[in-house]
Amino acid sequence: MSIVAPSSFPESPISATIPLDGTGVAHGHLHLPHSRDDSAYGAIMIPISVVANGDGPTVLLTGGNHGDEYHGPLALTKLVNTIDSGDVTGRIIVVPYMNHPAFTGAARNSPIDGANLNRVFPGSPTGSVTQKIADYLTRYLLPISDAVLDIHDGGKTLEFIPMAASHVLDDKEAEATNWEAAVAFGAPFATKLVELDMLGMWDAVVEDSGTPFVSTEMAGGGTTRPASMAITESGVRNLLHHWGVLAGAAQPSTSTVLDIPDSGAYLISENEGILDWLVELGDPIAPGQVVARVYNTVKLGADPIDICATIDGVLAMRHFPGLIKMGDAIAMQATPIRS
Amino acid sequence: MSIVAPSSFPESPISATIPLDGTGVAHGHLHLPHSRDDSAYGAIMIPISVVANGDGPTVLLTGGNHGDEYHGPLALTKLVNTIDSGDVTGRIIVVPYMNHPAFTGAARNSPIDGANLNRVFPGSPTGSVTQKIADYLTRYLLPISDAVLDIHDGGKTLEFIPMAASHVLDDKEAEATNWEAAVAFGAPFATKLVELDMLGMWDAVVEDSGTPFVSTEMAGGGTTRPASMAITESGVRNLLHHWGVLAGAAQPSTSTVLDIPDSGAYLISENEGILDWLVELGDPIAPGQVVARVYNTVKLGADPIDICATIDGVLAMRHFPGLIKMGDAIAMQATPIRS
Amino acid sequence: MSIVAPSSFPESPISATIPLDGTGVAHGHLHLPHSRDDSAYGAIMIPISVVANGDGPTVLLTGGNHGDEYHGPLALTKLVNTIDSGDVTGRIIVVPYMNHPAFTGAARNSPIDGANLNRVFPGSPTGSVTQKIADYLTRYLLPISDAVLDIHDGGKTLEFIPMAASHVLDDKEAEATNWEAAVAFGAPFATKLVELDMLGMWDAVVEDSGTPFVSTEMAGGGTTRPASMAITESGVRNLLHHWGVLAGAAQPSTSTVLDIPDSGAYLISENEGILDWLVELGDPIAPGQVVARVYNTVKLGADPIDICATIDGVLAMRHFPGLIKMGDAIAMQATPIRS
Amino acid sequence: MSIVAPSSFPESPISATIPLDGTGVAHGHLHLPHSRDDSAYGAIMIPISVVANGDGPTVLLTGGNHGDEYHGPLALTKLVNTIDSGDVTGRIIVVPYMNHPAFTGAARNSPIDGANLNRVFPGSPTGSVTQKIADYLTRYLLPISDAVLDIHDGGKTLEFIPMAASHVLDDKEAEATNWEAAVAFGAPFATKLVELDMLGMWDAVVEDSGTPFVSTEMAGGGTTRPASMAITESGVRNLLHHWGVLAGAAQPSTSTVLDIPDSGAYLISENEGILDWLVELGDPIAPGQVVARVYNTVKLGADPIDICATIDGVLAMRHFPGLIKMGDAIAMQATPIRS
Amino acid sequence: MSIVAPSSFPESPISATIPLDGTGVAHGHLHLPHSRDDSAYGAIMIPISVVANGDGPTVLLTGGNHGDEYHGPLALTKLVNTIDSGDVTGRIIVVPYMNHPAFTGAARNSPIDGANLNRVFPGSPTGSVTQKIADYLTRYLLPISDAVLDIHDGGKTLEFIPMAASHVLDDKEAEATNWEAAVAFGAPFATKLVELDMLGMWDAVVEDSGTPFVSTEMAGGGTTRPASMAITESGVRNLLHHWGVLAGAAQPSTSTVLDIPDSGAYLISENEGILDWLVELGDPIAPGQVVARVYNTVKLGADPIDICATIDGVLAMRHFPGLIKMGDAIAMQATPIRS
Amino acid sequence: MSIVAPSSFPESPISATIPLDGTGVAHGHLHLPHSRDDSAYGAIMIPISVVANGDGPTVLLTGGNHGDEYHGPLALTKLVNTIDSGDVTGRIIVVPYMNHPAFTGAARNSPIDGANLNRVFPGSPTGSVTQKIADYLTRYLLPISDAVLDIHDGGKTLEFIPMAASHVLDDKEAEATNWEAAVAFGAPFATKLVELDMLGMWDAVVEDSGTPFVSTEMAGGGTTRPASMAITESGVRNLLHHWGVLAGAAQPSTSTVLDIPDSGAYLISENEGILDWLVELGDPIAPGQVVARVYNTVKLGADPIDICATIDGVLAMRHFPGLIKMGDAIAMQATPIRS
Repeated sequence: MSIVAPSSFPESPISATIPLDGTGVAHGHLHLPHSRDDSAYGAIMIPISVVANGDGPTVLLTGGNHGDEYHGPLALTKLVNTIDSGDVTGRIIVVPYMNHPAFTGAARNSPIDGANLNRVFPGSPTGSVTQKIADYLTRYLLPISDAVLDIHDGGKTLEFIPMAASHVLDDKEAEATNWEAAVAFGAPFATKLVELDMLGMWDAVVEDSGTPFVSTEMAGGGTTRPASMAITESGVRNLLHHWGVLAGAAQPSTSTVLDIPDSGAYLISENEGILDWLVELGDPIAPGQVVARVYNTVKLGADPIDICATIDGVLAMRHFPGLIKMGDAIAMQATPIRS
Repeated sequence: MSIVAPSSFPESPISATIPLDGTGVAHGHLHLPHSRDDSAYGAIMIPISVVANGDGPTVLLTGGNHGDEYHGPLALTKLVNTIDSGDVTGRIIVVPYMNHPAFTGAARNSPIDGANLNRVFPGSPTGSVTQKIADYLTRYLLPISDAVLDIHDGGKTLEFIPMAASHVLDDKEAEATNWEAAVAFGAPFATKLVELDMLGMWDAVVEDSGTPFVSTEMAGGGTTRPASMAITESGVRNLLHHWGVLAGAAQPSTSTVLDIPDSGAYLISENEGILDWLVELGDPIAPGQVVARVYNTVKLGADPIDICATIDGVLAMRHFPGLIKMGDAIAMQATPIRS
Repeated sequence: MSIVAPSSFPESPISATIPLDGTGVAHGHLHLPHSRDDSAYGAIMIPISVVANGDGPTVLLTGGNHGDEYHGPLALTKLVNTIDSGDVTGRIIVVPYMNHPAFTGAARNSPIDGANLNRVFPGSPTGSVTQKIADYLTRYLLPISDAVLDIHDGGKTLEFIPMAASHVLDDKEAEATNWEAAVAFGAPFATKLVELDMLGMWDAVVEDSGTPFVSTEMAGGGTTRPASMAITESGVRNLLHHWGVLAGAAQPSTSTVLDIPDSGAYLISENEGILDWLVELGDPIAPGQVVARVYNTVKLGADPIDICATIDGVLAMRHFPGLIKMGDAIAMQATPIRS
Repeated sequence: MSIVAPSSFPESPISATIPLDGTGVAHGHLHLPHSRDDSAYGAIMIPISVVANGDGPTVLLTGGNHGDEYHGPLALTKLVNTIDSGDVTGRIIVVPYMNHPAFTGAARNSPIDGANLNRVFPGSPTGSVTQKIADYLTRYLLPISDAVLDIHDGGKTLEFIPMAASHVLDDKEAEATNWEAAVAFGAPFATKLVELDMLGMWDAVVEDSGTPFVSTEMAGGGTTRPASMAITESGVRNLLHHWGVLAGAAQPSTSTVLDIPDSGAYLISENEGILDWLVELGDPIAPGQVVARVYNTVKLGADPIDICATIDGVLAMRHFPGLIKMGDAIAMQATPIRS
Repeated sequence: MSIVAPSSFPESPISATIPLDGTGVAHGHLHLPHSRDDSAYGAIMIPISVVANGDGPTVLLTGGNHGDEYHGPLALTKLVNTIDSGDVTGRIIVVPYMNHPAFTGAARNSPIDGANLNRVFPGSPTGSVTQKIADYLTRYLLPISDAVLDIHDGGKTLEFIPMAASHVLDDKEAEATNWEAAVAFGAPFATKLVELDMLGMWDAVVEDSGTPFVSTEMAGGGTTRPASMAITESGVRNLLHHWGVLAGAAQPSTSTVLDIPDSGAYLISENEGILDWLVELGDPIAPGQVVARVYNTVKLGADPIDICATIDGVLAMRHFPGLIKMGDAIAMQATPIRS
Repeated sequence: MSIVAPSSFPESPISATIPLDGTGVAHGHLHLPHSRDDSAYGAIMIPISVVANGDGPTVLLTGGNHGDEYHGPLALTKLVNTIDSGDVTGRIIVVPYMNHPAFTGAARNSPIDGANLNRVFPGSPTGSVTQKIADYLTRYLLPISDAVLDIHDGGKTLEFIPMAASHVLDDKEAEATNWEAAVAFGAPFATKLVELDMLGMWDAVVEDSGTPFVSTEMAGGGTTRPASMAITESGVRNLLHHWGVLAGAAQPSTSTVLDIPDSGAYLISENEGILDWLVELGDPIAPGQVVARVYNTVKLGADPIDICATIDGVLAMRHFPGLIKMGDAIAMQATPIRS
């Protein structure tokens, strides 16, 4: 599937308050006009930093694709606070909170148009606020980037074991290039994904453009912890080394390689209730093993529903909140294949 | 401070669909008439179970005082599913989701009247929905109870080290009785609290009535995990043994005793931003040590604000979400004094 | 139970834009200052009409106690449009839409404070908007009235067989007086109610003041029909004749007398789902007869729940909407005892 | 007007949890992934049943096109609970609550995207939730169906006389086929509609595909009654007989044929106020006859507005709620032409 | 950029309740069907007046493009109340509140779909409510008009010096024609705008059609005053004279011509806080002059931020509310070039 | 009427982050614990400054009583930024945004509990958020103050001529003292008010305590201008001189004295529509003179309603928004009696 933004698109209404082609460290905003009832000539101001020095590749680092995920925003905010442009050869463009309205609202989706940014790419300059943000990334930042890292975690409602990921691609050379980068990140786990539906994803427009791309999942629950932040921050620096824009060499820890074969890896709840976990995230699981139970909270005394694993592997993701609804994914299973 | 519900109060509009004085295991609801726009003769149905056998004390077990806390609701839902009334001598009354509208809405406070149940005791039969619930607990369930356990955790926005707690009371005999019970719970930590403001708390009306009372804090974040649930469930059974309503003896683990001297134990954020944690929950801390930093998310590149410990001890509670606002408590410190 | 508004209450902020003691037909409003965000010096304007001529009793006619009931508002609006003051001896005060914010919002309860007007009497001049309305009726209109008719129907969520009702009172003389009036209304059914809980009702404050009082239930569903309006309108005129304020004699049809003994007359749903009615409103019922079934709409193929009658009598009220929630009253049963 | 879903559309994100080509009676759900702020990997679960046996036609039965209409949902829920697959020759696919979010919200339109499902066909797999549902019906269920029945009633805000309907079509053979089916339904009334605007309707995409199609209107007000349900349920079985998928012959009552010539059949309110009905649904009307009056509820004593019939016929539909706004349709007139 | 509505568009669902080609003065509505949850067959009724007499040009006068601007709505409402059709040669079509839902909601954007009408032209007959309105204006009213005046002011959140404006166009003859009309309006100021982004504006579709067009800005704050209304009302009549549809000659006051060169004319706030104005609207300004200060309201005692003029000229527009957010336009500067 | 907070009230939950009895200039917050769903241990932080030096009186300056009024907040924010504590003898306590949640929400009333702060005094420490704020002012700040100035303007929905005001009091000595202070403020107008209803006002609790009190009205519309700010800022300094806490003498301009005799000074709208002003604020008016007209915006062409003055005087206040509802005050009239 080829994703191409129509060439007939008008210019984006978004403009950057700092030059994207300067030298040194610059902090500014992407200015997106947004006429609100309480401010006719208002705007959304999305923070952006550019760190540049000499000739070299341009790496685009993004976070906040979903507004309730904090490992990316925090790692990137800290990076631009501490990085010395003298260590850079080339350019690093950092957008820590891509879906700024969602980030400000502390929610996965935008409170303005309800949109999940990672389902509206390549976006449109004449669409809703979220579509305009997607369009700017697609038509203005992506074309000047030589590699892209997008940092995710599970947000407020999911929790993952920490992993870097790349996709299975038709272009096997590109696939290999991305996999090398995912491994260079050095997270405890590394995954090669066969996405069944990449419609509207940032991942898809980047990969379709032929630009090297890595994404991550880093714990979740809408919080961060020292350990998961250490993985994230070292991973970012490893990738900057790997992609040749930061002086020094990547020193990644060895990742356990995970296989997530297909949509059967997900366990879906057929009932609503309160979740009782029998295994912890990362624990080994086997087919038929009860990994969780769903208890009825409407009528006490009803038998709980057993949720059983279907593959040999580990619990790689879990529904985070205590309550679950019918149709929600309870867990994702994965099989460690080597490290 | 004496808390007495006016004797002139009319009867509660709440009625139980099961007898509270039966034998065996019974599951039913507290029926609270609530005239909604979409159902003039509607009602709120709060699940309740009664387990009774022979003569003995009555123990009241409550959870869901705040609607986003899941250790109490899950432990109590599981208890009434598995308990054998033949093991009981006396009566156990279980209300796993006291603030049922809040629990159903997955929020700390009630979506109907915005009230925090634990700030409206002793409640009123003619007040708002939350006040009516508080009143029923105060005037109907408390008087027939010989001991009360109220299970809390940090909910969606706080995270605690697991602890059982009792209060410093004017009546030193009662204080000693409650402390013994808190220790019998057998959580990793036990705390004797000097509450500065108990206005409107369930704790206060129970203690004021002279009834033995224990409360807990058990992790948080709006989720549960196998380890924290194991602590909660064994603690509940330990207390039922301790209070003599369940056959067998309490076999509590030894708790580390914590001292939380006064409101100075709380670190309050003077800024809004994204939180970077330098220590993990339960880690030792010392005065002046930076435990967290608050980074500005409006303007990149601004210096973060250091949040420093003020006492020797451990990080006993932390703000869970990635973002923090001015005035929010970032953390609670505590001093382990013995185990 | 004696209901007395504190004598220390300050004056009501509500004022009438027409004199209440004039002669002829006057239409105006009750002006209730209400400072809104969009109008600091705004007000709620509750329509009121006064029809007066010569010396005689004062009758107060009220509708719109619940904002989604239309028989009272329509009958009273039509009455003041057509009545000739020359036919009046005394005074008729008409407030067709008592809870005006709820009426305007087409909802049972007030959209401003969420209150059910018929649960906040006697109200308060310093309380919420709904409490202020209740207070004005209690302290200003009731004291100048010699008799009160309050017209209800089932609103959007209930449907009743058409009836006039009076209450069982400690004062048997007053009870007899009210019953005569209820029969004089001439609806198809007449009921003498033993209310279990009259807390906060308009009925209660009127009866407690010793003023004759009749109320009605007239179909429902949030609509009117020619037949039910004819019953309502003739009933209003019959009562005005009966109470001696309108020239001519009441010519009521003979009512079937209904007995609604206690709260066991209500059938409460223990499940949520879609309702299937096996009997129509007013049909005869017998103990054990299935009157309705509740079908599960979450999982097709599940067995429906039978809802069975518990007494010999008729289906006197039914839940109107197609969906029902746990705890909602499905139906009210009643026993015809004579006509 | 030809309605064709673009061939370039990607696959629907919706998947069925049961096979659509099995044998016997199967109950399951259409699983529509929907990333909510409170569940990143959540889904909407739309109930579906398939009843199949042997070779024969496939009939698709749909209800809940509008979420506040209950005759279709109830009749279809009961059908799949009671039908014996041994009586079936072919296949019956049943989707009782098509717009499941609207049905759950008890509202005509979807609370998620505000959309009226019956105005967004043929839908889109990349559009809003309601558009995705429309697309699945259009591209997955319609192509495997040989005939479609869509059951409507007036919902919460309209009330119709009970009728089956088919459309005037360019293809006169198809028109005749559909009319035979509408008559076979056996409702008290049958109508052949000249729709002025079918843009976005389920009716239009089905008819455009050349598939036989019948729709209905069955009372309304957001409730059901035994009599109108009997008409609906016998009508559904009659059609299943007629279309040859259910053993036995249709035994329809004879329908009175109604003519609804054009948009002049609608009476539109030019004012807001409370409605007084002078005729009942189904009553005969004549040009100039006052069928309803609109009374002002802002100022009492104002003259009401007469709403007059414009044709000889019957009152075929009426606005159900007591209040009406400017621009709302008060009534639809129709002319009985034969039975 | 050419703006053409697709020729394949179906008919608009909007219909006028009065003929647009009658004679004399007629008042009616544009009837836009809008199926609401509380009225399935509801409609939005947008007032329209037509004043016609004899042969002559058709002038379309519009207001309420933004729902919180009152100079246009009031001037046009008064015009149609007082105009004598005998003074007209040709036709005047008046739509005082184009975005009627926004006007009724007293907000800039529509409360139904959140849309800014002036960013969705040319609209669509199958789009959202606001898009349908835009489409009707584009495809039905514009083609029968020989000239269009659209009256704006600053609404609730901006305040302008009173001006008429026309655009710089590629077609210099059209540009000159429009400029003559803008000057004929006779406001204190006249401006020729180089719009950087006209995407979706009413202005753009009118100009693109080759129809003469003038727009205005007239004070603001969501109010009107006698002086600004006098300018507006005389300007409307001047234009009607100028365009030859109203008997008599335009007698405009001489306008000061303003130059607003580019987007640098706007001063954007980089902080949030409370605004302190050092100059009044219309006052002269010079580069470097502090025109306003932004004070921090989170922490008292912080230094305010100076907002400095960047050109020689006047303060032509200011942010009206006391509080300002980051990214909001504080002011627009303009240079008087001659009068 | 005596207003006394119950002596039995518990301590306020509010605490100041700075000492109120220090020396020099200190800026801090009033910390009001507020448990939100998104932060269990959250707080509302109300800015406060204290400026103290040597022995002398304590003056309390308050603004933001209504959250949409900006003259008080801006004047007081600027004052504490610029004042030199060396010029002070005594203490100035400044709370620029009393109803901080309303101020932050840019609305008259609190978005948390909907309350108008100036109607809930003396407040309660156990009430809603707004009641807690009122209680702190009443029981903690008022008792340590020797004089109080509360600065109002018309907010977003009213506009006043600039005035300082004091009340007619039973204690004629206190009345004279306050009047001297109001005149010392030096606004263009000064008014002595006979309030008909002071229930719940800050004014009332201050005056009831015997503390000197002045309030103001300063333009409005939810904005400020250089001229009205100059009046406000010089007035504040004049009062500080007058009350002896700031070095130097008051040099007030001479105020025109206004008489506002009774509630008849208000003109109330009996209709809704768009307002056309025939006189400007401050213009002279005479009985019978049309000051404004209300035009119907539902049906064009309807005759407007004339709003006529009833006294000789000036237009002292006007409804600011373009639209008006029934019951809203259109204007306040006042009679200049001397200057």
